Amino acid sequence: MTLPQEAERAPTTIATIAGEVGVSVTTVSKVLNGRADVAPETRARVEASLRRHQYQRRTRRQPTGTAQVDVVFHEYNAAWTMEIICGIDAVAAAADVRIGLSHLDGRHRPTQRWLDGVLARRPTGVLFVLCTVTDAQRHQLERQRIPFVVVDSDSATSASVPTIGANNWNGGLAATRHLIELGHRRIAVISGPADVLCSRARVAGFSSAHDEAGIRADAGLVRYGNFHVGGGYEHAMALLTGPDRPTAVFAGSDMQAMGVYRAANQLGLKIPRDLSVIGYDNLPVGQWIGPALTTVNQPLRDMAGTATRMLLDLARGVEPATTRIDFVTELVVRESTAPPGG
Amino acid sequence: MTLPQEAERAPTTIATIAGEVGVSVTTVSKVLNGRADVAPETRARVEASLRRHQYQRRTRRQPTGTAQVDVVFHEYNAAWTMEIICGIDAVAAAADVRIGLSHLDGRHRPTQRWLDGVLARRPTGVLFVLCTVTDAQRHQLERQRIPFVVVDSDSATSASVPTIGANNWNGGLAATRHLIELGHRRIAVISGPADVLCSRARVAGFSSAHDEAGIRADAGLVRYGNFHVGGGYEHAMALLTGPDRPTAVFAGSDMQAMGVYRAANQLGLKIPRDLSVIGYDNLPVGQWIGPALTTVNQPLRDMAGTATRMLLDLARGVEPATTRIDFVTELVVRESTAPPGG
Repeated sequence: MTLPQEAERAPTTIATIAGEVGVSVTTVSKVLNGRADVAPETRARVEASLRRHQYQRRTRRQPTGTAQVDVVFHEYNAAWTMEIICGIDAVAAAADVRIGLSHLDGRHRPTQRWLDGVLARRPTGVLFVLCTVTDAQRHQLERQRIPFVVVDSDSATSASVPTIGANNWNGGLAATRHLIELGHRRIAVISGPADVLCSRARVAGFSSAHDEAGIRADAGLVRYGNFHVGGGYEHAMALLTGPDRPTAVFAGSDMQAMGVYRAANQLGLKIPRDLSVIGYDNLPVGQWIGPALTTVNQPLRDMAGTATRMLLDLARGVEPATTRIDFVTELVVRESTAPPGG
Repeated sequence: MTLPQEAERAPTTIATIAGEVGVSVTTVSKVLNGRADVAPETRARVEASLRRHQYQRRTRRQPTGTAQVDVVFHEYNAAWTMEIICGIDAVAAAADVRIGLSHLDGRHRPTQRWLDGVLARRPTGVLFVLCTVTDAQRHQLERQRIPFVVVDSDSATSASVPTIGANNWNGGLAATRHLIELGHRRIAVISGPADVLCSRARVAGFSSAHDEAGIRADAGLVRYGNFHVGGGYEHAMALLTGPDRPTAVFAGSDMQAMGVYRAANQLGLKIPRDLSVIGYDNLPVGQWIGPALTTVNQPLRDMAGTATRMLLDLARGVEPATTRIDFVTELVVRESTAPPGG
């Protein structure tokens, strides 16, 4: 088997692959670009041939120090955003790739103006964080061979879009199970926006934990909002001053949990004696606040690093082994949860 | 006075300015580049002429959506870094300028490799945050007409380097005065690195407050470290378990203050009854932790926004009215400070 060495001497072209598989050059290109409109069987044969030849896509040449990944957040969110940036940086800096930063001002889809800018500056690739492109925008990026990866998708993206996420349903399940096991029966959940998939997945996990324990979740205790401190604070004030208040709150982010802390503090409720609180994300701040926050660990740095590695592979014409990865979430029990009335 | 209109019709060149003032084109260029080697009187005459002609430097043409400011941090520091990024973003996004992000891995001077990258990609300008260039690097940037501004300089930079800072000495003075007025006499200070100017300026303010009150500061209570939670925690543990422990700690950052909270918590010391704590920066987190943190407000977003505006002016060939600005700091009193033994 001398093929790899030969391939090194004379790089394989798309035409070689097309000829070997018996398809058009366009089809090979579609497979390389992760396009959906290729029959699965054809795709498999093309990919096998690409692997056999250790195909390296000819990339645009960029002068040293000018390769750049465009990172697009739906909004900036202090510590959460920095965790993602640090995860990207660890991989990008090692590859001598720079980071270009922008946000969509809370929107989950970029404007055409943004896309025009990307097409003009031709970055090495684009990372979308909690946002993604429309189908039309996706096709524009593909036509220009600008690879992209979505981190923590806000919706069920098409199967051809490379996506790194976390198992949000599982996170919601683990957090709620923990509270039920401690004896809580009136548990509130404050999630993110209802139109964001991860919010709904966590609430679904919350419901599943109730179902498996044979407990009926009170629909009035399920709240959707935003991931900020203020959102957690306002929902918590409403929940904790209402009739038959919950004995536990599962928050959609550690920042929301801090808002719950503040509301509890103002109302003279002691955590965890009068109220158990669980956060989400496992940001560093959760360890430092008192009492230390029980939270769902979402490996944001690993997610961002893996997404960056995948993007740089795509930019080099290397098809990643898998382009749809969910990281496992797990509960980190600290001091903010206890039996009710504990 | 029809000159402005005329200037709009036929843009003034450097040669026009040179001819009018009676100096060489090189001298005008030096003034435009903020070089120090121009006699003050000559500089004043050149600047007056530039203003009279509303001189606009011919800039490199950049396609829409590709203008970018390179932002260089000495390191990433979660919430602090995000405050700076948000301040830059507010100005840059409005001007349709993108942000390129990098850090120096804790160093305060970029490597030549980094500089080579900048010279290759020719950004609209460079913002240095808590780091700056060497003289040789400064000259390289100036020769290439890549403007730069330093935010929160780590050292006494040359007068020709545009710098946005905050009055650190004043911040140290205000924090320490507050503690002395509350009755504290054994006050510790945990500052940032000793080789960073802002750390030393705050300690100088701390000392001045002691001097003006006629109190001798204990040199053993002055600590230098880093701005992170861990740094605050370790120094606080050492200070609070030592003999004759301080009744108050003035921390160099809100993150350090959180480390002090953690140490106090572990040692069973209640804030503010057993220990008063003051932070620095006024990050949002200080409002949410319990007890809410008394801190020195450093207007990080305004500082970063002003620096960005200055940089974009320089990039357009407009000389800012002033290139050396210190923002005023002020004490924000919350719940973490009280009389000793209170």
